[in-house]
Amino acid sequence: MEYRIERDTMGEVQVPAHVYWGAQTERSRNNFRIGAEGSMPKEIIYAFAYLKKAAALANHELGVLSAEKAKMIADACDAILAGKLDDQFPLVIWQTGSGTQSNMNVNEVIAYYAHVQAGGKLTDEKKILHPNDDVNKSQSSNDTYPTAMHIAAYKMVVEVTLPGMELLAKTLDEKAKAFKDIVKTGRTHFMDATPLTLGQEFSGYVQQIRNSIRAIKNALEMVRELALGGTAVGTGLNAPKGYDVLVAKKIAELTGYPFVTAPNKFEALAAHDAMVELSGALKRSAVALMKIANDIRMLSSGPRCGIGEILIPDNEPGSSIMPGKVNPTQPEALTMVCCQVIGNDVAVSMGGSNGHFELNVFKPLIAYNVLQSARLLGDACVSFNNKCAVGIEPNYEVIQKHLENSLMLVTALNPHIGYENAAKIAKKAHKENKTLRQAALELGLLTNEQFDEWVRPEKMVGNL
Amino acid sequence: MEYRIERDTMGEVQVPAHVYWGAQTERSRNNFRIGAEGSMPKEIIYAFAYLKKAAALANHELGVLSAEKAKMIADACDAILAGKLDDQFPLVIWQTGSGTQSNMNVNEVIAYYAHVQAGGKLTDEKKILHPNDDVNKSQSSNDTYPTAMHIAAYKMVVEVTLPGMELLAKTLDEKAKAFKDIVKTGRTHFMDATPLTLGQEFSGYVQQIRNSIRAIKNALEMVRELALGGTAVGTGLNAPKGYDVLVAKKIAELTGYPFVTAPNKFEALAAHDAMVELSGALKRSAVALMKIANDIRMLSSGPRCGIGEILIPDNEPGSSIMPGKVNPTQPEALTMVCCQVIGNDVAVSMGGSNGHFELNVFKPLIAYNVLQSARLLGDACVSFNNKCAVGIEPNYEVIQKHLENSLMLVTALNPHIGYENAAKIAKKAHKENKTLRQAALELGLLTNEQFDEWVRPEKMVGNL
Amino acid sequence: MEYRIERDTMGEVQVPAHVYWGAQTERSRNNFRIGAEGSMPKEIIYAFAYLKKAAALANHELGVLSAEKAKMIADACDAILAGKLDDQFPLVIWQTGSGTQSNMNVNEVIAYYAHVQAGGKLTDEKKILHPNDDVNKSQSSNDTYPTAMHIAAYKMVVEVTLPGMELLAKTLDEKAKAFKDIVKTGRTHFMDATPLTLGQEFSGYVQQIRNSIRAIKNALEMVRELALGGTAVGTGLNAPKGYDVLVAKKIAELTGYPFVTAPNKFEALAAHDAMVELSGALKRSAVALMKIANDIRMLSSGPRCGIGEILIPDNEPGSSIMPGKVNPTQPEALTMVCCQVIGNDVAVSMGGSNGHFELNVFKPLIAYNVLQSARLLGDACVSFNNKCAVGIEPNYEVIQKHLENSLMLVTALNPHIGYENAAKIAKKAHKENKTLRQAALELGLLTNEQFDEWVRPEKMVGNL
Amino acid sequence: MEYRIERDTMGEVQVPAHVYWGAQTERSRNNFRIGAEGSMPKEIIYAFAYLKKAAALANHELGVLSAEKAKMIADACDAILAGKLDDQFPLVIWQTGSGTQSNMNVNEVIAYYAHVQAGGKLTDEKKILHPNDDVNKSQSSNDTYPTAMHIAAYKMVVEVTLPGMELLAKTLDEKAKAFKDIVKTGRTHFMDATPLTLGQEFSGYVQQIRNSIRAIKNALEMVRELALGGTAVGTGLNAPKGYDVLVAKKIAELTGYPFVTAPNKFEALAAHDAMVELSGALKRSAVALMKIANDIRMLSSGPRCGIGEILIPDNEPGSSIMPGKVNPTQPEALTMVCCQVIGNDVAVSMGGSNGHFELNVFKPLIAYNVLQSARLLGDACVSFNNKCAVGIEPNYEVIQKHLENSLMLVTALNPHIGYENAAKIAKKAHKENKTLRQAALELGLLTNEQFDEWVRPEKMVGNL
Repeated sequence: MEYRIERDTMGEVQVPAHVYWGAQTERSRNNFRIGAEGSMPKEIIYAFAYLKKAAALANHELGVLSAEKAKMIADACDAILAGKLDDQFPLVIWQTGSGTQSNMNVNEVIAYYAHVQAGGKLTDEKKILHPNDDVNKSQSSNDTYPTAMHIAAYKMVVEVTLPGMELLAKTLDEKAKAFKDIVKTGRTHFMDATPLTLGQEFSGYVQQIRNSIRAIKNALEMVRELALGGTAVGTGLNAPKGYDVLVAKKIAELTGYPFVTAPNKFEALAAHDAMVELSGALKRSAVALMKIANDIRMLSSGPRCGIGEILIPDNEPGSSIMPGKVNPTQPEALTMVCCQVIGNDVAVSMGGSNGHFELNVFKPLIAYNVLQSARLLGDACVSFNNKCAVGIEPNYEVIQKHLENSLMLVTALNPHIGYENAAKIAKKAHKENKTLRQAALELGLLTNEQFDEWVRPEKMVGNL
Repeated sequence: MEYRIERDTMGEVQVPAHVYWGAQTERSRNNFRIGAEGSMPKEIIYAFAYLKKAAALANHELGVLSAEKAKMIADACDAILAGKLDDQFPLVIWQTGSGTQSNMNVNEVIAYYAHVQAGGKLTDEKKILHPNDDVNKSQSSNDTYPTAMHIAAYKMVVEVTLPGMELLAKTLDEKAKAFKDIVKTGRTHFMDATPLTLGQEFSGYVQQIRNSIRAIKNALEMVRELALGGTAVGTGLNAPKGYDVLVAKKIAELTGYPFVTAPNKFEALAAHDAMVELSGALKRSAVALMKIANDIRMLSSGPRCGIGEILIPDNEPGSSIMPGKVNPTQPEALTMVCCQVIGNDVAVSMGGSNGHFELNVFKPLIAYNVLQSARLLGDACVSFNNKCAVGIEPNYEVIQKHLENSLMLVTALNPHIGYENAAKIAKKAHKENKTLRQAALELGLLTNEQFDEWVRPEKMVGNL
Repeated sequence: MEYRIERDTMGEVQVPAHVYWGAQTERSRNNFRIGAEGSMPKEIIYAFAYLKKAAALANHELGVLSAEKAKMIADACDAILAGKLDDQFPLVIWQTGSGTQSNMNVNEVIAYYAHVQAGGKLTDEKKILHPNDDVNKSQSSNDTYPTAMHIAAYKMVVEVTLPGMELLAKTLDEKAKAFKDIVKTGRTHFMDATPLTLGQEFSGYVQQIRNSIRAIKNALEMVRELALGGTAVGTGLNAPKGYDVLVAKKIAELTGYPFVTAPNKFEALAAHDAMVELSGALKRSAVALMKIANDIRMLSSGPRCGIGEILIPDNEPGSSIMPGKVNPTQPEALTMVCCQVIGNDVAVSMGGSNGHFELNVFKPLIAYNVLQSARLLGDACVSFNNKCAVGIEPNYEVIQKHLENSLMLVTALNPHIGYENAAKIAKKAHKENKTLRQAALELGLLTNEQFDEWVRPEKMVGNL
Repeated sequence: MEYRIERDTMGEVQVPAHVYWGAQTERSRNNFRIGAEGSMPKEIIYAFAYLKKAAALANHELGVLSAEKAKMIADACDAILAGKLDDQFPLVIWQTGSGTQSNMNVNEVIAYYAHVQAGGKLTDEKKILHPNDDVNKSQSSNDTYPTAMHIAAYKMVVEVTLPGMELLAKTLDEKAKAFKDIVKTGRTHFMDATPLTLGQEFSGYVQQIRNSIRAIKNALEMVRELALGGTAVGTGLNAPKGYDVLVAKKIAELTGYPFVTAPNKFEALAAHDAMVELSGALKRSAVALMKIANDIRMLSSGPRCGIGEILIPDNEPGSSIMPGKVNPTQPEALTMVCCQVIGNDVAVSMGGSNGHFELNVFKPLIAYNVLQSARLLGDACVSFNNKCAVGIEPNYEVIQKHLENSLMLVTALNPHIGYENAAKIAKKAHKENKTLRQAALELGLLTNEQFDEWVRPEKMVGNL
């Protein structure tokens, strides 16, 4: 491979001849060979592009950057956002904990790309923009990386996570309505219980997802707050007055999302509680979705030796050895995602808790895990929705058989003959393998007519 | 020990002669010998007392329970709340996952205590109240236990957790104000960085705690919602119309907290996402407090070979072998609590995610962990506040020495001579163990007067 | 309450008049009001008693403590171990992270109890033993607390955890043998699969528990190693030569367990990886037991609308509202315990990872969680064994019905007619609600006789 | 894009014209659009290649597969292992929990690649090998995926994780030896304590890593055991007698690692406790490495306002705003990796605990997390070793200054003047900002000569 020589404050570095990145990126690439190359999430890079453009515009507006330089920076950012420079960001998550090297990667690529766009050559010693003095002006990695993290997380959540969850909530709500008159046996402790409708069962799922959405939105309120303007330690050193408010406004305009400057920059650099909180809200959603997916998996179990009260779509052959087998694969994918999100939350919590003094240096870890959780949850909800939830149908025959058999219909007798007498009936029926009616009559605790009047499943589901 | 015979639907049980509990409590006591006896949190028992009283009042008001019975139940509940019956609840957390046996423990104690209060004897076969038909009327364990869980958690959080956190936030805010003019070196990556004031550093802690409080309050919005009225599976079977709304209102009146009936009872029984969310908010707070406590620990390290920029109170001899040693014991206790809360959150998440169909049967686990987390966080904040935070003082001498020595003051030169020249100065000073001024002058990059004008720590902290 | 005055190096302290503890214990009691009083596990106190006695004997043998003093210390330790002084240890887990104050609590109680035993009074200014100079001789909290932690954990694991797990493994193994000829349908993905025997299914559980036991025993190898002799920072300052080896030998003799001195005392004070590893082995066991308990819960589900292939004992009325209901309460308790152990492991990992320099100061947290996990797992296994596992019986009728119905018997045809033809049969049978035989014959893919010869469930289970 | 039509038991599917995969792979690709395409770890694919080759050889040896077919399969597997077919495995982790679709992906690619190699065309309706009947012969996804998981994990651990850890242990051991005479102040509770040598401090790190390696090796003992031969539910249906032992032997030969057949196939399919245990051992190692990396970070802190007792290599400019700043970036990367491993362990534990009946369906989740943890730990150890540990040097000047200043040298006086008098000296020196010698003499507790004789740091470090 051909190389060119680049310089930074530590000296010379050989860099692949044709890349836009410079010395600092190359140092990091060599110093951190941990996991696959280029693992720093692309969403972070793109968020940096919004941020660098906004910073350039704000710097110009505040009189510390020329219009020409601001334009060059903005154009380079647009090129990044257009996906033209995706191969210029080779760094990994597992680098310095401030993400400095990814910030410098972006600074270098912008500076050198602009230089080339302006007719310069990569081998020119002096470039038209300086990565630190121009592109990084009024910034530090310490305030840019957390800002990029918030931009990327906010976008991922509102563009992927929430739409996925809302889509699934909507489908389940439609099912809840469609199934509102299907009376079925309830199950508590995995054991037969009093009846409810299939619609009521599904309405609980809808409530779970809607509550999860609410929790995520609560957490987003903090993610809206941006560290930018705090620079090195939160004091805003080397940034012009008013810059923090203005640059947040620019980012809001460029992204279309309601970002604002953080009220306390010391907190915004030294802690990433907002991301921890968001991760917690995603985790809480994963807990909810895990329950729902497990229910669907178990309700559809069988086809002949399980619970089998619902039917889910057959999407693929389920087994490489058992012919004709069909499996609840979508619930499986979703529950695996939920476990991942719950594990990621622990990683985020550990990283969040280990910040020291003016800077938390677990930033890339936190960003990576939150973005993965947000992406997976959103995608998995869509997949589960499209390939499973929309096709859920009741298995009427099984539902009816179970309902008729359930001994727990006896509960309807409590107000008439008391808990203890009702228990006698259920126990006798169970022991002697009889119907409740048989047992009740044999015990002489009620008449045939009373049984007809009191034990009516369809009357046992509508009290609320 | 003397015994009496009690009966339930499964037959006879020997029960200690003089206890108020009955057959079902005794069965559970014998069936679940896991960990220490009586581990079911007292807060849950007391919450049950509020709930049973409210249920009796609502049942009476809705015409399904006589005034006499309602009064007897209410009086027994008051006795529980007065702490008179604390020794009547011997059951453990590790019982049935619905908490049914603790519900029955409360039902039995209320029924039998009332019977004795009314002049009866524990050996009377028939008691004046029936544990199921009267005390548990219009209820199921499946809606009472989650209701008790919400009452207990809400109370603990607003009475212990939040006051503790608010107290600490207030103290730290006072410190932030008192220290607002103390300029000190910042630290990023645990390394010397540009200056800030000690007050700014503390203001970040205040923000962290206040954001945590906000997150907890958001979560409480869901904890306010009560499952009661859903009975066995969420349909409200065997409860009178309007009972759910009324009984929540009664609970709100009795406790003084804004409880309301849950909008969807199926969700409220089958999932405990509200508790998972609360646990997540406590965990997020633990993450924040861990950072703060670590900072205090490290800032006060020394006395002679550490960072030593603040002084914290000496509360006890620190070592059994090293004479005169003093340690940051309050930060240590707080950080241990934070780890516990983070671990508890995983237990809660697992329990929350493993519900099936109409009932989550990890209720006591969830209740225990959330209550422990809430208690420990609140207590630890008060302890840390009273025995440490209130006594924090700056160590002026060390702060000044560090500030003067820090090479990162060079950052102030960036706008004047550029990042690269500034780096030359810092590197030369570091390598040759000189002051920045010496290095700058020797490099000829600026004059003595310029150094005086540009490198002024007190001007580097106030940009925002 | 009456008080007396005690002194330590920080000055005077009021102490309740009649307790054996002194100034340092009382300071801690006042300084750390976090959670319930006296929460430091009793097992730790008892382990300290072994340790202090062993230290006294070793100190005497090495010539640095008189025979009289050694005897007095040993006698006091015996009194602690006899449970006579249980009320003398009021301190909490959430104290200094080195456990120094509990070490001093033990030192003080031993010194003052010995003094009183020797005829002295608690109000005497000088006691017959000095808590630091005599009882704590050749020791530091930094090496005693980790030693006590290892002693307590080792004992708990070999006396409670492992016997509980072995008991359960034995019972399940007996069931596996008893059920070895009961052919039943298998289930993969919660869906009907090819058959196996109930005995084979249970043999998997046995293997899981035995592998868990093996993992725990591997971890115990590290827990056997004791920090004692390292004193303050691991160098053994102020301890006589040979003390570390000798005192470990004494502890081994007193406890009957194979304790040895740790090969590297710096590691033994600064890190608690041995406890982290033990916690991990307990967690791994919890993961295994969770699977087993879930299977039992689900296999016994019903009685009429579930899977219902096994019957488990009815131990108590299952519901306060549904008469006659019986629930899998032992599996529920066990799975709650498993979740707790998994959560505790996270707390232990966090505490373990946050040690600094020569001392990990998350010791009480680590001790508490490991001891709780070990206790709960052992107790829960015994409870699950005695009240559930021993009574498990097959439900022959249901097993047979499911076996006959399962479409996955078709898998036996793969070698004869190929996967694709076999799939056609299964799909036709499923779609048209027919038996496999009907479908096979109608498709003309095999004869009645071939079906009889090839599709024989009892031949499908014995290949290994 | 051009397509061809493929068929499976569910019907026709459009597949990109030139890929080797077939209908089932394509279904999965369309059905599971969760996260990035192709996320199933390549190590799993390669492990499948070993497995499929071994299975073909064993099938042939046992007389159920022709030599020609076995050779074709083996050749295709070799092509996969040579990296020639890397682009033929587009499936994601988040698919069916059994990994069936990745098993079928491998089956299809082998069958179709072999067909093309033999001169056939992808559009031929019948291929020379059948993915199920030939390539998957005597196998099920249910035993192949766990086998591939074990092969991949074992290889990763012995080829990446352990070498990385051993390299680091070796370097730190060399440092421990090189630093064995450098006496320095110890620190407990982050506070000054009695002295030790820098070599002793590092020896603790070495012990931690060596113990971690031991734990990982213990866990590998279980990972050696392979599920293959259990087929669908563990009974070995459709596999010839002796196949399980033979195929494990073949895999051992092909990989060069000591794989054996699992003693109980029911456990090996239904639970992944071996992977959970391995994850736990990796987590335990992460806990150890986190401590070590934190120590290095903190010991090297400064350069002028921190602890600064060691110097670590300067690898890159540390800040985009603070010129000349150097940061402990390698410790940062390592600690981020440690947090990830700890979080991954929770995901694995959850997946492991949620298996049901004959099959755990969290296999890809478990595989992904264990492989990521193993890879990151190994890579991060190498990076930390090469770019940081090898270059660690003592900062003699700072070490000496701290050592002389430490008040905890007073501990050496305990045996001579008692703990309480020693404490008086330390307290006086601290309060009056004097040396220990000054304070001791002023208090008249010892003579100048005694001080010289007793307080000798170099004598305080060598007792063990």
